[in-house]
Amino acid sequence: MIRFITAGESHGKCLTGILEGLPAGLPVSAEAIDLQLRRRQVGYGRGGRMRIERDEIEITAGVRHGRTLGGPVSFVIQNRDWSHWRIAMSVEPVEEDANVRPITRPRPGHVDLAGALKYGTYDSRDVLERASARETAARVAGGSFCRVLLEAFGIRIGSHVVAIGTEHVSGEYENLEPGKIMEIDPFSPMRCADAAAESRMKALIDRAKEMGDTIGGVAEIVASPVPPGLGSHTQWDRRLDGRIALCMMSIPAAKAVEIGSGIEASASFGSAVHDEIFYDRERRRFFRETNRAGGIEAGISNGGDIRVRLYVKPIPTLRKPLRSVDLRTKEPFEAAFERSDTCVVPAAAVIGEAMLALALAEAFMEKFGGDSIAETRSNFEQYLRSLEQY
Amino acid sequence: MIRFITAGESHGKCLTGILEGLPAGLPVSAEAIDLQLRRRQVGYGRGGRMRIERDEIEITAGVRHGRTLGGPVSFVIQNRDWSHWRIAMSVEPVEEDANVRPITRPRPGHVDLAGALKYGTYDSRDVLERASARETAARVAGGSFCRVLLEAFGIRIGSHVVAIGTEHVSGEYENLEPGKIMEIDPFSPMRCADAAAESRMKALIDRAKEMGDTIGGVAEIVASPVPPGLGSHTQWDRRLDGRIALCMMSIPAAKAVEIGSGIEASASFGSAVHDEIFYDRERRRFFRETNRAGGIEAGISNGGDIRVRLYVKPIPTLRKPLRSVDLRTKEPFEAAFERSDTCVVPAAAVIGEAMLALALAEAFMEKFGGDSIAETRSNFEQYLRSLEQY
Amino acid sequence: MIRFITAGESHGKCLTGILEGLPAGLPVSAEAIDLQLRRRQVGYGRGGRMRIERDEIEITAGVRHGRTLGGPVSFVIQNRDWSHWRIAMSVEPVEEDANVRPITRPRPGHVDLAGALKYGTYDSRDVLERASARETAARVAGGSFCRVLLEAFGIRIGSHVVAIGTEHVSGEYENLEPGKIMEIDPFSPMRCADAAAESRMKALIDRAKEMGDTIGGVAEIVASPVPPGLGSHTQWDRRLDGRIALCMMSIPAAKAVEIGSGIEASASFGSAVHDEIFYDRERRRFFRETNRAGGIEAGISNGGDIRVRLYVKPIPTLRKPLRSVDLRTKEPFEAAFERSDTCVVPAAAVIGEAMLALALAEAFMEKFGGDSIAETRSNFEQYLRSLEQY
Amino acid sequence: MIRFITAGESHGKCLTGILEGLPAGLPVSAEAIDLQLRRRQVGYGRGGRMRIERDEIEITAGVRHGRTLGGPVSFVIQNRDWSHWRIAMSVEPVEEDANVRPITRPRPGHVDLAGALKYGTYDSRDVLERASARETAARVAGGSFCRVLLEAFGIRIGSHVVAIGTEHVSGEYENLEPGKIMEIDPFSPMRCADAAAESRMKALIDRAKEMGDTIGGVAEIVASPVPPGLGSHTQWDRRLDGRIALCMMSIPAAKAVEIGSGIEASASFGSAVHDEIFYDRERRRFFRETNRAGGIEAGISNGGDIRVRLYVKPIPTLRKPLRSVDLRTKEPFEAAFERSDTCVVPAAAVIGEAMLALALAEAFMEKFGGDSIAETRSNFEQYLRSLEQY
Repeated sequence: MIRFITAGESHGKCLTGILEGLPAGLPVSAEAIDLQLRRRQVGYGRGGRMRIERDEIEITAGVRHGRTLGGPVSFVIQNRDWSHWRIAMSVEPVEEDANVRPITRPRPGHVDLAGALKYGTYDSRDVLERASARETAARVAGGSFCRVLLEAFGIRIGSHVVAIGTEHVSGEYENLEPGKIMEIDPFSPMRCADAAAESRMKALIDRAKEMGDTIGGVAEIVASPVPPGLGSHTQWDRRLDGRIALCMMSIPAAKAVEIGSGIEASASFGSAVHDEIFYDRERRRFFRETNRAGGIEAGISNGGDIRVRLYVKPIPTLRKPLRSVDLRTKEPFEAAFERSDTCVVPAAAVIGEAMLALALAEAFMEKFGGDSIAETRSNFEQYLRSLEQY
Repeated sequence: MIRFITAGESHGKCLTGILEGLPAGLPVSAEAIDLQLRRRQVGYGRGGRMRIERDEIEITAGVRHGRTLGGPVSFVIQNRDWSHWRIAMSVEPVEEDANVRPITRPRPGHVDLAGALKYGTYDSRDVLERASARETAARVAGGSFCRVLLEAFGIRIGSHVVAIGTEHVSGEYENLEPGKIMEIDPFSPMRCADAAAESRMKALIDRAKEMGDTIGGVAEIVASPVPPGLGSHTQWDRRLDGRIALCMMSIPAAKAVEIGSGIEASASFGSAVHDEIFYDRERRRFFRETNRAGGIEAGISNGGDIRVRLYVKPIPTLRKPLRSVDLRTKEPFEAAFERSDTCVVPAAAVIGEAMLALALAEAFMEKFGGDSIAETRSNFEQYLRSLEQY
Repeated sequence: MIRFITAGESHGKCLTGILEGLPAGLPVSAEAIDLQLRRRQVGYGRGGRMRIERDEIEITAGVRHGRTLGGPVSFVIQNRDWSHWRIAMSVEPVEEDANVRPITRPRPGHVDLAGALKYGTYDSRDVLERASARETAARVAGGSFCRVLLEAFGIRIGSHVVAIGTEHVSGEYENLEPGKIMEIDPFSPMRCADAAAESRMKALIDRAKEMGDTIGGVAEIVASPVPPGLGSHTQWDRRLDGRIALCMMSIPAAKAVEIGSGIEASASFGSAVHDEIFYDRERRRFFRETNRAGGIEAGISNGGDIRVRLYVKPIPTLRKPLRSVDLRTKEPFEAAFERSDTCVVPAAAVIGEAMLALALAEAFMEKFGGDSIAETRSNFEQYLRSLEQY
Repeated sequence: MIRFITAGESHGKCLTGILEGLPAGLPVSAEAIDLQLRRRQVGYGRGGRMRIERDEIEITAGVRHGRTLGGPVSFVIQNRDWSHWRIAMSVEPVEEDANVRPITRPRPGHVDLAGALKYGTYDSRDVLERASARETAARVAGGSFCRVLLEAFGIRIGSHVVAIGTEHVSGEYENLEPGKIMEIDPFSPMRCADAAAESRMKALIDRAKEMGDTIGGVAEIVASPVPPGLGSHTQWDRRLDGRIALCMMSIPAAKAVEIGSGIEASASFGSAVHDEIFYDRERRRFFRETNRAGGIEAGISNGGDIRVRLYVKPIPTLRKPLRSVDLRTKEPFEAAFERSDTCVVPAAAVIGEAMLALALAEAFMEKFGGDSIAETRSNFEQYLRSLEQY
């Protein structure tokens, strides 16, 4: 049973994560996780901070001599800038003259106001530190352990950017086959396979940056190959598409989630939407020539690639002034917020990969069970054999 | 702590649901639930069966003398057609000569193939009976108890259809205020406030029906007014938007979920996306003039109306032949499937209302606690007072 | 993932249960469940009501043609006396002149007072109906499905009574081997293998009955054979002993739970407590000659029989008057309560069997996974082979 | 919603815990937690290691300026001996010549054999490191945050030792009132209020130590005062007694759990077991003169003190040789194990306090909700007022 929980504030000492439910004996390394953490940090449109800092994981439990032990894996990601925040984010009480000013000017689009009301504080820092996208570094780390598990069974996960603002990839790149997606340089700043679109996307980001504005976009995350049978139609909260939607929509800037060609399907006739079924006698398996379903039918993986689209809003921290109201005085103010990120869509794609890995690993372990990688593998392979003999 | 679980096959004896976590003393009636069940059954584009059958709930536990007891509420919805299915869906073994033929011809777009592989059966009926949209009747019932809870605190939930296939409501109806949505006749077959669009939608459904085809669409579900502070940014799986996405994406034909103007936001500059903050000194509360966020910022309700869009694929059962392969023989076949539904978008809207109610009730009880409606109300009102005094 | 939830009031229309997580293809029958329900109803010291009524399950979903479908199994147990309670326990509001008198006189030892305060009612019936031991009929039903699952893998569960009040079985029956326990007549009213002790127990129950009193006792529940490796030491809430303790202590009259010779161990030196380890080269397996651990070490089944003792308090409904206070008037009263049960220990043993089956099935499915009984069996057998080759 | 998860191996770098669900604004300090950690480490019968090392918590998230933020609290407890274990417990792979010898000689009574079989390893260190009682340091830390929460509402938790081996406190100390228990020196090595019994207990521990043996015992943990209404009778897994039993039985050496006078009750007539109900008109509340129920009736706290007994087996690591079998060679061996602890009952009492705090905090937050301590307090106080006005 996979469980995953994170802790940590953006400018606190460190992020912490505990991931439970990996079988014992799985080879894992900090390097493999760090690679994903670095991928989260690149991205055209990210500010200078991201280029300087480099997140690194320290695995503190659950792994011995390069292999999982079967118990909870814990890890931390240090905040390299912690020395500057020791007072403002001190765990201990600080002197009154420490001059830590509360943040009373809530930014629209952030947790600042809703969180302050919910948790009863007049200092938005109390909530915005945890709501910060920095928390997703811990998710990428946790999800990357899940990715390592899935990769041990041949399941790969990748992503590409299909739109930045109004700039879309051309049609042929809309349904890019997973192989091509996996081929994209892991550190590609744009994560876009369509070179022409990439140029337009970059130009749009540049323009947004010049204007002191930000820009949203769309990323597609895929997993391939995925065995049929993950997830279940039998209860509303066990459906794989629902579980994936939970994982994806929980990403800070996500405002919509699509499985396969879901939005197009909603505008279509049924005859154009469903994936006909064929059988390959040689390889002894069913297959489809299309995958509009995004690899999931009735909440169960159907053997096709899993395709998910994440619609990312532009981040709300802009130089362009937005109107807001002071928490204490209730006086309106109009203020710009300095931050260097213009576009986070490529980063969101990488986070989306991690969250998809989490959702799939959960369903995978539920189906195949096993306490050691050998046992899980035996169960997995026996299932594959049973499919061939079906 | 709200828990909700359903059981039952489409042609089995009955659907059953158990909903746990409602406070004691909440007035509920079968009539209030039946009204919602009937709403699920109307809808332009539904077949004849829906017009004849009328689902009715029988509450079998958890309610006494018209009020909840604080324990689990159980209910059943009988299958009125059960007498015809006593053999095919018998719980007990049947005689070999009962002539119950297995369904070996899987329909694309359904659970038929993926479910048969997962559960190791050569009779798709073993899985399609549970995957049937009929299960959503139990969800509507369960969600409607949650709706009754929310209504006791003034929170109303409604929906409207914003697109059928390529036919959209006009711009002014895109962001229809909740009051107008709640005014739509609960039994409106199209659930569309834009009369002109409604005509076009109906015509499109008629056309699809003539062609033996089906058609998808988009429904918007809203909750209003919603207090700020439901859900939490503090952990990925406690975010309200993620919880809503899980609830929504689990609806059988759902293939995409959008919060607020999420898809439009992904194509926009940040300056056009975020909802500026104002303060009304008279009513002593913060407010927004826009609600592109759909009432949720950082996974927390922000006091605005919650707006969710559900993208519904056309149902996969069509008269137009689709190619598939026999489970046993692996022989291809090309077959049409008779079913009377052409469009289920209005029904999906009603199901979406129920699932939104479930997600909100869960977050509501987590924040306000309480074992009796009086206690929950006291907690709720004290919180509202604290917001006024903030 | 096993989930189990029940609903229903003692004098309501019916009890309902939903059990989720059984693999598909498991042969089950209402008869097998009814047998367990009847076992719950016999028992020396039970009143006349129990001898007349006979609980029967109706499976309403999740089973087709004698086999599970892999989805949730739902069932009901009708209240045969419902016609007499239609007004007092009506779901709908009743006329004011219906003359349903609230129960304002709370019985010590029952939910009556604590529940009334928690749920804010002046009618203890609102809470005592659900707290009634009748709810355990639904647990026996749900647990018996789990038993059927375990039996498909050779794991049997049985119980015997080791003490009634101060009357204990003699030493040789204290650690009775499972085979002997399973041999006890399933419908034995005393469930005691020690004939001499049984006579003394019966005499003590008779004496209590004459006095208008009630009497407690101790039951031991065993599972055998159990493969090593169920449960886990890796997290506090995944330990098998903890999960069993939750299941057992939740039985209404349970006030203590013991694994193996736990209480004796607490009074012992370590050298007398631990089970030395041996190896049988022929059968290729580790074994113990003692089982003081009750089959669980560090929260994991160790291959020995699982032995759990349930300490049952005498039921609090007695003819002997106990002092209490009226909920409304706060006036003291002294009242006797008529009820026919004198001793429920043999029944508690049967309920304990069901709850142990639930705990073991949960751990079993978590380890072995699988969506069909064939898949689960393949995984299980491969694990057993790996143990032989260890 | 309280969630608590720990990670870490006994000789790994550190233990880590994440506790979620505390309301914001609760004053907490590392000192308060450290005090409890130190209490876990004292204890007559503990070895020298315990007296030298001193566990200290480092709070790494969830607390700012001395108050909780409402999000997950994370913490670590460093292993002060880590430098000696960097190779043996290295996260990274080690050189073959690092000479880390696998532990192939499983100790009876430990996880060594069952865990090795479950997780498929021939090195028991892979499992025994996590199963070690050291993990309970993280539990004490997490539970102590819960204790701080409960104390903010006046609920105090304490414990005393009632038996070591066959040495019991005298009758008058059996049902010691909570005030007296709380008065015991927090660092008392024996945690026994009965001075005469304490001497006998110490002598028995000394004797065991001389013999190279170990000894078990019984600790009682109490919470007082506890408002009525925590937990619920409405579902088997929501009962407070069941939740407490899960928490308690999960403590490594625990083999039995008793609520109130449960074991004595099982040997008694009902007339001697139940706590009669009285009403104090002045203080406007119901009360009991006895508390045999241990403060819980039907799974709900009844307003009395919660009393739980934990039966602790003697730890299985003894100098006296026990027979076992080598994992690889299957050869029998007879070996003594050096370890300095003779008796862990006083430590188990402190761990029991933490786990009781966890169980109560969970039920407390479920009933009272609230996201800030002010909100939770308001809800709590309003409930207390409603009880007075009942």
